[in-house]
Amino acid sequence: MVMDIKKTSTFNLQPIRQSVAVSFNYEIYFTNNLFELKNPTLAQVIAADEETKPKKVVAIVDAGLLEFFPGLVKQLTAYTQFYGEVLTLALEPMIVPGGEAAKNNPQLVEQIHQVIDTARLCRHSYILAIGGGAVLDLVGYAAATAHRGIRLIRIPTTVLAQNDSGVGVKNGINAFGKKNFLGTFAPPYAVINDSSFLKTLGDRDWRSGIAEALKVALIKDANFFEFINSRSAALVRRDMDAMQQLIYRCAQLHLEHIANSGDPFEMGSSRPLDFGHWAAHKLEHLTDYNLRHGEAVAIGIALDCTYSYLLGLLGKKDWQKILHTLSALGFTLYVPELEDSRCLFRGLTEFREHLGGELTLTLLQGVGKGIEVHEVDLSLYKQAILLLHEFVENKQSLVRVSVH
Amino acid sequence: MVMDIKKTSTFNLQPIRQSVAVSFNYEIYFTNNLFELKNPTLAQVIAADEETKPKKVVAIVDAGLLEFFPGLVKQLTAYTQFYGEVLTLALEPMIVPGGEAAKNNPQLVEQIHQVIDTARLCRHSYILAIGGGAVLDLVGYAAATAHRGIRLIRIPTTVLAQNDSGVGVKNGINAFGKKNFLGTFAPPYAVINDSSFLKTLGDRDWRSGIAEALKVALIKDANFFEFINSRSAALVRRDMDAMQQLIYRCAQLHLEHIANSGDPFEMGSSRPLDFGHWAAHKLEHLTDYNLRHGEAVAIGIALDCTYSYLLGLLGKKDWQKILHTLSALGFTLYVPELEDSRCLFRGLTEFREHLGGELTLTLLQGVGKGIEVHEVDLSLYKQAILLLHEFVENKQSLVRVSVH
Repeated sequence: MVMDIKKTSTFNLQPIRQSVAVSFNYEIYFTNNLFELKNPTLAQVIAADEETKPKKVVAIVDAGLLEFFPGLVKQLTAYTQFYGEVLTLALEPMIVPGGEAAKNNPQLVEQIHQVIDTARLCRHSYILAIGGGAVLDLVGYAAATAHRGIRLIRIPTTVLAQNDSGVGVKNGINAFGKKNFLGTFAPPYAVINDSSFLKTLGDRDWRSGIAEALKVALIKDANFFEFINSRSAALVRRDMDAMQQLIYRCAQLHLEHIANSGDPFEMGSSRPLDFGHWAAHKLEHLTDYNLRHGEAVAIGIALDCTYSYLLGLLGKKDWQKILHTLSALGFTLYVPELEDSRCLFRGLTEFREHLGGELTLTLLQGVGKGIEVHEVDLSLYKQAILLLHEFVENKQSLVRVSVH
Repeated sequence: MVMDIKKTSTFNLQPIRQSVAVSFNYEIYFTNNLFELKNPTLAQVIAADEETKPKKVVAIVDAGLLEFFPGLVKQLTAYTQFYGEVLTLALEPMIVPGGEAAKNNPQLVEQIHQVIDTARLCRHSYILAIGGGAVLDLVGYAAATAHRGIRLIRIPTTVLAQNDSGVGVKNGINAFGKKNFLGTFAPPYAVINDSSFLKTLGDRDWRSGIAEALKVALIKDANFFEFINSRSAALVRRDMDAMQQLIYRCAQLHLEHIANSGDPFEMGSSRPLDFGHWAAHKLEHLTDYNLRHGEAVAIGIALDCTYSYLLGLLGKKDWQKILHTLSALGFTLYVPELEDSRCLFRGLTEFREHLGGELTLTLLQGVGKGIEVHEVDLSLYKQAILLLHEFVENKQSLVRVSVH
């Protein structure tokens, strides 16, 4: 049937073939103390649009951030007054809950749309999204769907958001119990990474973001993996210089991938940057989001590296070095939710459904070398889970011995 | 201030400049009796993706259409069974209200998302949107935001949708009393124009779509305007050949504009295809959508041509010929809502807010030649309204005389 129908045609008028090329350009800035009056970065970004000033700005702020920066809203207000010829706050900043809660409440999207309407923003106005990755995803979705897209300046405040989600082209919220069920592809207008926000992060959030850096190193850049491996102690003791280098290189690799993949809006099925993510997404859900995204990604990486090793793709030394690096960074590599493999493996189906088309998993065939596969051997995956468990148990008993 | 801040910088790390190029390709097919078993068009479109078959399809159908094609759902079901190796209906077709009601009920978006979830569609599945422009806009918005975009095959069933909105890259619904407040730019996967749907259109809907053809002719193609002018009697007596030629050329001009404008996702402020639309959008709203979109566009064109004439941009003969052509096609060129100019002119502000940035109106400096302006003379616009009124009154008294 498929062959037959290709040969026949009932068209009277020739089809019109349409080709639309769209190009998006944006910059990722690195700064610190963004809202100090002497820091012109944000005002410069807005001044550069060369349109009539002052421009209308609305800020949406992660509530989690205000615990550590209670003066942030006041500072932002003072900043916009100081640079009042360039930008003006159209409304009081809106505060939204941080973390996954931001993505689980559809009313927040409506509330942001309401704010956009009340402030009478137009497509050339600016929305500042200030917060962690979840808040950026929420605000990005609301901004992308109002007036078919209002300019979004992302100001990511966590390691994860600064080196990964905040620099990319996606947004989204959860629906029907599925992560990112609703969302769009919408590049930001600009991204401003402010290292001063990182100082107040809890250790778990500081560490979480390192998982995505390790991920991109493993699939793309062996030297970067060596860097992370060699600086793991510095990263654990919160050396800001090491972290800044990690964020910069991770963001760079991420951006290069998006620009050069040939499929920035993911119309195909290939998604190498989702290495380790099928299990991560499922584990986040299974632990009711008690695991941070980066913590879940670390486990997902450990699992998919172990599977790659069992498949014979990844050498034993490399496999061990990766797991030791993850451990040295302080990641937990095993949670009991891995044991309910029937439930876990449903994550593979959901992963395929979200990406679309054929199942496409990235595995490792060496450090810095991702490879795509379209089939999985579930019994080998079960073995990988057991082997990962064993590795963690041995590690713990070694720790116990050395502590003793 | 603006100058000063450009000179200073506190960056330690160089900004990363990102450039993302995305290209969208799709075809507009012309056929008739699309769901007859012997018509392979739809199955061919889906077969051409060269992915594992059969592909999951969900259909969303305009309730207005079913009044004239009560057997449509049955026919569609039989069609998908006949081409079952290529496509499979994942669920019973969903019926949604037609016309502007489709865009005024936000719950419909949620219901379509629910259907997408229930049918477990992925990004490589297909949604068929079958109906008028409003239904295509609604379904397009829901499809674009689920899994960050499910393939959308538009099957427009009105003249307006076949030659204008259905072939473009936009979708949207109304919110906060504003037309298309929510929406995205999202090119379709394919468009299939079936002329057999046009036969059952009421005269108002048949005529409405001609307004957009006239609009694009006036700003881009004097020959096409001559075609419409010379075939106006044939179009009024519903000659299908004339209409097919009109739809084809209008769609072609529309698509060429999108492809070659340099700004397909409208990031700037220029929007020549919105000629006549600022008043049209406002008049639709002021008449509680008793005016069809095309009927409102005809009035908007008449008004902006008259204003162009008064500004000295458009010659008197051309101006008269345009108004006579609109009349000959059966359009009403004046409604009492034009008289409340304060209310009407608010449409200029809303138009600017929706497009963003500086006010940019397209006027005519000759047939086939649009020109953009950034300022309006409201008192001259009031004169244009009076002159348009006068033209319509004279026309009516002439008709009365000739009838007498």
